[in-house]
Amino acid sequence: MSSKPAIGFCGLGAMGFGMATHLVKQGYPVTGFDVYAPTLERFSAAGGTPSTSLSESAKDKAYYICMVATAQQAEQALFGDDGIVAGLPQGAVLYLTSTVPSSYAQSVEKKLADVGRGDIFFIDAPVSGGAIRAADGTLSIMAGASEAAFEKGKFLLDELTAPAKLFIVAGGVGAGSNMKMVHQVLAAIHIISVSEAFGFAARLGLNGSDVREHVIGGKAWSWMFENRSVRTLKEDYFPGASAVTIILKDTGIITSMANLVDFPVPLCSIAEQLYITGLNKDFGAQDDAGLVRLWTSEPVTSLAPLADEDKKAKLELVSNLLNGIHLCAAAEGISFAKHLGVPLAQYYELCVEAAGGSTQYKEQGTKMIDIIEGKQGHEGASLRSYRDGLKAAITEARDKKIPLHLGNGALTLIEQAGKEQSLSSLLKLYSV
Amino acid sequence: MSSKPAIGFCGLGAMGFGMATHLVKQGYPVTGFDVYAPTLERFSAAGGTPSTSLSESAKDKAYYICMVATAQQAEQALFGDDGIVAGLPQGAVLYLTSTVPSSYAQSVEKKLADVGRGDIFFIDAPVSGGAIRAADGTLSIMAGASEAAFEKGKFLLDELTAPAKLFIVAGGVGAGSNMKMVHQVLAAIHIISVSEAFGFAARLGLNGSDVREHVIGGKAWSWMFENRSVRTLKEDYFPGASAVTIILKDTGIITSMANLVDFPVPLCSIAEQLYITGLNKDFGAQDDAGLVRLWTSEPVTSLAPLADEDKKAKLELVSNLLNGIHLCAAAEGISFAKHLGVPLAQYYELCVEAAGGSTQYKEQGTKMIDIIEGKQGHEGASLRSYRDGLKAAITEARDKKIPLHLGNGALTLIEQAGKEQSLSSLLKLYSV
Repeated sequence: MSSKPAIGFCGLGAMGFGMATHLVKQGYPVTGFDVYAPTLERFSAAGGTPSTSLSESAKDKAYYICMVATAQQAEQALFGDDGIVAGLPQGAVLYLTSTVPSSYAQSVEKKLADVGRGDIFFIDAPVSGGAIRAADGTLSIMAGASEAAFEKGKFLLDELTAPAKLFIVAGGVGAGSNMKMVHQVLAAIHIISVSEAFGFAARLGLNGSDVREHVIGGKAWSWMFENRSVRTLKEDYFPGASAVTIILKDTGIITSMANLVDFPVPLCSIAEQLYITGLNKDFGAQDDAGLVRLWTSEPVTSLAPLADEDKKAKLELVSNLLNGIHLCAAAEGISFAKHLGVPLAQYYELCVEAAGGSTQYKEQGTKMIDIIEGKQGHEGASLRSYRDGLKAAITEARDKKIPLHLGNGALTLIEQAGKEQSLSSLLKLYSV
Repeated sequence: MSSKPAIGFCGLGAMGFGMATHLVKQGYPVTGFDVYAPTLERFSAAGGTPSTSLSESAKDKAYYICMVATAQQAEQALFGDDGIVAGLPQGAVLYLTSTVPSSYAQSVEKKLADVGRGDIFFIDAPVSGGAIRAADGTLSIMAGASEAAFEKGKFLLDELTAPAKLFIVAGGVGAGSNMKMVHQVLAAIHIISVSEAFGFAARLGLNGSDVREHVIGGKAWSWMFENRSVRTLKEDYFPGASAVTIILKDTGIITSMANLVDFPVPLCSIAEQLYITGLNKDFGAQDDAGLVRLWTSEPVTSLAPLADEDKKAKLELVSNLLNGIHLCAAAEGISFAKHLGVPLAQYYELCVEAAGGSTQYKEQGTKMIDIIEGKQGHEGASLRSYRDGLKAAITEARDKKIPLHLGNGALTLIEQAGKEQSLSSLLKLYSV
């Protein structure tokens, strides 16, 4: 018998399967529930104990992780007939690691009390990092809960994350989900920017392999670009590692919250329309890297290499596009975080090392936070090179009739920032 | 023999054919050139004199109208080998009625002098109103030229327009094209808003006939909606009366100029990406009303009527969408006009009665101009009902997974306008 406590787990999807089997490898007895039978077989083969009943999977489990796809699924799994909550023993710790609206996480805490299960320690703990890091136990985790809940349950979060990647966010339940949401502002914009960049590049005649090499090695780097471009080059979309429906759901959480609090999220909003367009083209269940097909139907690796000088100039246009988008994404994320009262230093630290990271965020993000917090010294940082870079890319796209939805959205913001062309004037667009 | 002077005419497309044959009906001997032989035959049947040589069509013509599609075509027709300019007699009046960048119109004036034909009176006179009004002689015309040119050549513009629809714009050559360009800000946004509205409505289950009746009869009216919806309902897109390539060209003139002078045109920019998307789907040569197919593949008239209450609520969402878009289009057009030094009172008067008109423009446009010109009394006009209306439409669209590119763009602007939610705060977004 293991000396480690038994864990219950619900939702063995791409992320959940990695998390649950990682815990198995760490010596925990894990009982896993999923609605999809083949997944349960795989889970059993990996050393887990499969379960076909939610309440059974929760029985006698002092620790239970819920990693379903949406708030609706969570509500059903937790509080439905024969659900998780009904099965949990007194004083259990319940982790909700799905990405959900913070208001939903808060409603779970309230409902537990309402149904007479205020004894359960609830931890709002969404994660980020993708399936590989889930299986490695190196996820970024953003957690909000009571002190008592953390005292009892933090050890299990430590198992799922790497040192310095567990962010305990002040504010209790809901604070973790809020942090995840503002992280996803960057993710939502960056994911579709990968496709816009590859599509633009392909239409300029650039081979995707050259594009990847150029972007990864330069200032236009983003975590999403490095991660997704592997699948773009292989056309590994079926089903791929991260479905369009997942980032569409996360984007909808952002834009719904933004509408609720009357905050503008121009680039997330453009991204959302593109994810919906992808969904309408039946790409929903496929990998989000496959959205490059909104721009080009041919594989991006099918193009003959260009002559060096031509190639260099065109790669520069692709970098310009991404730099402008990433800069504005950073402004959008940081401003929204500020508006929601999310601690900015922690937000910065989290994103730099997580799936929302980009070189622009890393370099300009601290300056933006200094400006927002009233520290001096960065107001003069100029947007001119971003503007001129975007204009060069957009002019070429206009000539070649290539849609650049995000690129034009970013240029609009930079032009709205006016003559001053400073980071400060860009951020003022979000000071509503 | 007619007592009226002989006219040369180049470019017998949808608009040009109507203009040229209208002049024929007014008793002018018109010699018309076009590259497309069947058009010349039709022109001949309508009483015109066909010509297959540009310089021949210009020979002995004291008055010559050039109505080709683009600046590139104009350059070739005017200054190419055996072109119009080579054929024109001394002291002729040359009208360029195509929609071109104002810088191009100015370059024509300069080039005439450079090639030793400073004797030609050049009038920059783009038109608006569509093929029917072209044939009726009731076009809106925006003209810039020297006083001497107008003295000699205004009578022919009077023939093509209705009283109060000829706008002599101060500023000489280029001023007419600038006025046309800012008029097209409204046209570019409104045209695609027709498709977004019908697509949204169809996806909500509304029959297109109900939508047309509702919109035409209410505050969401626009000239473009009334005009284009006839073709939307009939699926009259092949080739239809106004090709996607035409409005895409005009939109590109706007966005290129905006980039040049560093002015934000968020909704035009979104519109441009949608026109490009339509072009990439091979809709370029088809009527722009056919862009509804970016939202729905079924005919919008194919849906069964809804129950009255449900129908009413959904039609309201469609109106909300259009009202928000039209309001922001008015702000964008008026602000850009102001930025370029276009006379605002004239711009207002022109657009209200031309293809750029909308009820929102008519009602809110004067208030916007008052605010921009520093007159008091309208700063407090509230955007809240527009914002709430857009949010209702967008929430429904998010649930139903319907992309609302312009609607979201408009909501972004209104949210950027901040807590004040006034026309004044909306216009400040363009005070760069």
